[in-house]
Amino acid sequence: MVTTPSLDTQATRVTVRGDRLLADITRLAAIGGRLDGGVDRVAGSAADLAARDWLGARIAEAGCVTWRDPTGNIFGRAPGGRDPWLLAGSHTDTVPGGGRLDGAYGVLAALETLRALHESGHPAARCLEIVSFWDEEGAAPTSTGGLTGSTAFCASDHVKRVAAFLEPHIEQGPRMEAAGFDLAVVDGIVGIDRHTVVVTGETNHAGTTPTDRRADAGRAAARILIAVRDVAAEADPSMVANVGCVEVLPGAPNVVPGEARLVVEFRAATRAALDLAAARLAARAEEAAREERCTAAVTPLSSKPESRFDPALRDLLGRTCADLGVPTTSMVSFAGHDAGVLSRHVPTAMLFVPSTGGVSHAPAEHTPDRQLVLGCQALLDTVVAWYQTRGERQ
Amino acid sequence: MVTTPSLDTQATRVTVRGDRLLADITRLAAIGGRLDGGVDRVAGSAADLAARDWLGARIAEAGCVTWRDPTGNIFGRAPGGRDPWLLAGSHTDTVPGGGRLDGAYGVLAALETLRALHESGHPAARCLEIVSFWDEEGAAPTSTGGLTGSTAFCASDHVKRVAAFLEPHIEQGPRMEAAGFDLAVVDGIVGIDRHTVVVTGETNHAGTTPTDRRADAGRAAARILIAVRDVAAEADPSMVANVGCVEVLPGAPNVVPGEARLVVEFRAATRAALDLAAARLAARAEEAAREERCTAAVTPLSSKPESRFDPALRDLLGRTCADLGVPTTSMVSFAGHDAGVLSRHVPTAMLFVPSTGGVSHAPAEHTPDRQLVLGCQALLDTVVAWYQTRGERQ
Repeated sequence: MVTTPSLDTQATRVTVRGDRLLADITRLAAIGGRLDGGVDRVAGSAADLAARDWLGARIAEAGCVTWRDPTGNIFGRAPGGRDPWLLAGSHTDTVPGGGRLDGAYGVLAALETLRALHESGHPAARCLEIVSFWDEEGAAPTSTGGLTGSTAFCASDHVKRVAAFLEPHIEQGPRMEAAGFDLAVVDGIVGIDRHTVVVTGETNHAGTTPTDRRADAGRAAARILIAVRDVAAEADPSMVANVGCVEVLPGAPNVVPGEARLVVEFRAATRAALDLAAARLAARAEEAAREERCTAAVTPLSSKPESRFDPALRDLLGRTCADLGVPTTSMVSFAGHDAGVLSRHVPTAMLFVPSTGGVSHAPAEHTPDRQLVLGCQALLDTVVAWYQTRGERQ
Repeated sequence: MVTTPSLDTQATRVTVRGDRLLADITRLAAIGGRLDGGVDRVAGSAADLAARDWLGARIAEAGCVTWRDPTGNIFGRAPGGRDPWLLAGSHTDTVPGGGRLDGAYGVLAALETLRALHESGHPAARCLEIVSFWDEEGAAPTSTGGLTGSTAFCASDHVKRVAAFLEPHIEQGPRMEAAGFDLAVVDGIVGIDRHTVVVTGETNHAGTTPTDRRADAGRAAARILIAVRDVAAEADPSMVANVGCVEVLPGAPNVVPGEARLVVEFRAATRAALDLAAARLAARAEEAAREERCTAAVTPLSSKPESRFDPALRDLLGRTCADLGVPTTSMVSFAGHDAGVLSRHVPTAMLFVPSTGGVSHAPAEHTPDRQLVLGCQALLDTVVAWYQTRGERQ
C-alpha cells in the first residue's frame, strides 16, 4: 500500500532566524528603555501603548494579520488560517524598572515563530495565533491586579476557538542556570496563600516594666517570623515562604510593643502542602506567642489556586526539547503567569529559558542569546508537532 | 555644759493630713478628668492651665505665697521664709489618657507638707519651696521634648538659691508592690541609649528566589531583635532593653525584604553597662546578619546620661523612712524625671511609692491611700530633718 506523503513531512525543517529575534528584543527594549538598561513599560503607559503599536507593525510587516480586542490584547495570524488555534505568546508590559525579557521574550518568540513558519510556507503557520496580553503585571495604581488581559480573554468567545496555549518565558529564578539546563518544561504554577498573623501583647513602659513582666508582641512576632521557613520546609521541601510585611505597634522606642502584624506568604505546587503549612503556622504562632506571654491569631488573607499544565502538551514540549538535544528539565513556576489563567480554560503549557543569576523584574535581567534562540526554536518545533498531531487526529 | 534646746526639738512632731492630701488628689484628677478614670492634661492645654490655677489657689488658701516664672513653673512658699530653699515637688501635666497620680502626687505631697508645716508653725516651713514644673511629659506636638520647666529652671538664677531638691513620685513599675515595699529611696535615674540597626539584604522575588539564595533582611532583623534581651542581660542584669520600632522594606507580601531597621533602647544605671551593651549589640547584629547573608550597621541615635542622686540626701531620706518603721527599699528609676535635670545642679533625691500592678501613664494608675499618705509623711519628716541638719551645720 502506498501512502500519500503529507504536506508536513514534505516540508524541510523550519528554523527560526535568531538574529531577527535578538534584534526585535533590542528594538522592543528601547521603547520605555532606561539609561540603566531597564525598561519602564507599565500597562497603559505611553511606552506600553507604543510597544503595542510597534508589535502590530512587526506582524503586518511580516505579511500577517493583526488586530486588538476591546481589552487591549494584541493578536497576529498568518493570512488564510482557520480555527481552532494554537495560541502562543505572553505580555509586553513591565513592572517599573523591569527587565527587557520577562513577558517580552515570549511575545517575540511567538512573533518569530509565526514569521518563520509563514515565510517558509509551512502549513502550521495557518493554525498559529500569537498574542500579547494586556496588563499581566498589575503594576499601575489603576490596575485591577494584573493578569487582566488573559482574564478578559478567557471570559470572551474568542477562547472557545483556541485549542491550546503555549507561553515561552524566562525562568525569573536561578535554578536552571545553577543546574546547567537550557530549557525547562513547566509542570504548573504554584498556588499562593497569604495569611495575616496578628500578635497581641501588652503595651507598656519600656523602662519601668521588668523584663519578666513584659508581653512583647514584637518579640513574639520575631519568633514567628523566624519559624516560618521551617514551617514551609516541613510541609513541603519544594515550598517557598516569605514574610514581606511586618508592623510593630505603637512603634515608639520607649514603648513595649502591644501588637504586631505579619503577612506570611506560602507558594507550593499542591493544595495539600499549602493547607498543611497553614495549620502548622497557626500552631507555631500560638506556641511562640505563648512563650512571650502573648496571643497570636492567624487569618487567611488571600489564596491563588495552583495550576497544573496539560500533560499531553507538556509531553509534546518535552519531546521537542529532547529532539533539540539540549539539557532540559521540568520544574514548577514559582511566579504567576497568563498561562495560569489560560490553563483553567484550554490545554496549556509553558517553556522556560534560564535567567542569569536568577535576576528578574530588574534592569539586570538577562538570558544568553543562545538560549533565547533555542527557546524560540523549541516553540516553533512544538507548533509544528502540534499541527502534525492535530492533523493525524482529524 | 547646758545646751539651749533648739526650736525643732521643742516642737511636737508634725503629721500630714492624709484626708486632705487624698481629697486634693481627687480634686486635681477632675481637671481634665475622663470618664474612664484617666486624665488628659497635656502641658499647655486648657486643662493643664486650669490645674495650675487650681494649684495656685490651694497654695494661697493655705496662707502661703504663690507665683509662676516666665516658663510656667508654679511655686509656693510659706510667708517669711528665706533661702537657701529646700525645693520639693514634681509636675501636674500628664500624657494623653494618663493617670491621676504620676507627677500630680509629688506636687500635692509637697503642697500638703508645706501646708502642714506652716499650719503648725514649724520653722522648717520657712525653708521649704514647692514647685510644679512645666511640661515634664513632652506629650504636646509643640513640646520641646519634655523636662521643659525643670530645664529652664536650672538655667535661671532661681536655682542658685536652692540648696536641695526632693521629688516624691509613684514608681510607675511593679517592683515595689511585688516585693512588698511601702517606700523606696531612689539611687538615681537610668541612662537611656538608643541605637539604630540597619540591616541590608537583597530585595528579591519571593517566589522564584530559592530559599538558600535569599538575603532576607527581615529574618536577620528578627534574629537581632530576639538577641537584644540577651545582649542587655549579659551587659548588666539590672538593665532593661526594648525594640519598639521595626521597619521592613519594601514591605510587600511577595518581595523578599532587602532592608530592615530597628530602634534598640537600653536603660542602665551606669555608663559602663550602656557602653558594653552597645558593643555587644554591634557584634551580635553583625553575626546574625551574616548568618542570613546580610550585613548590619549599628549607629547611636541618642544618649541620655544617667543621674546619680546625692548620697547625703538619700541617707537622710533613708533614715526618715526607717524611723517610720515601714518596709523601705532602694532602687534605680527606669523612667526619666525632673529630678534627673535638677541633680546636675543641686543635691537631689527622689522617694517612690508603689504603683499597683506597675501600671502608669494609663487610666488604671493607682497607689493604695495608705502608701500615698506614708510617702507624704516621709517627705515632711525629711524636710524637718534637713532643716535640723542645716541648722546644725550653720
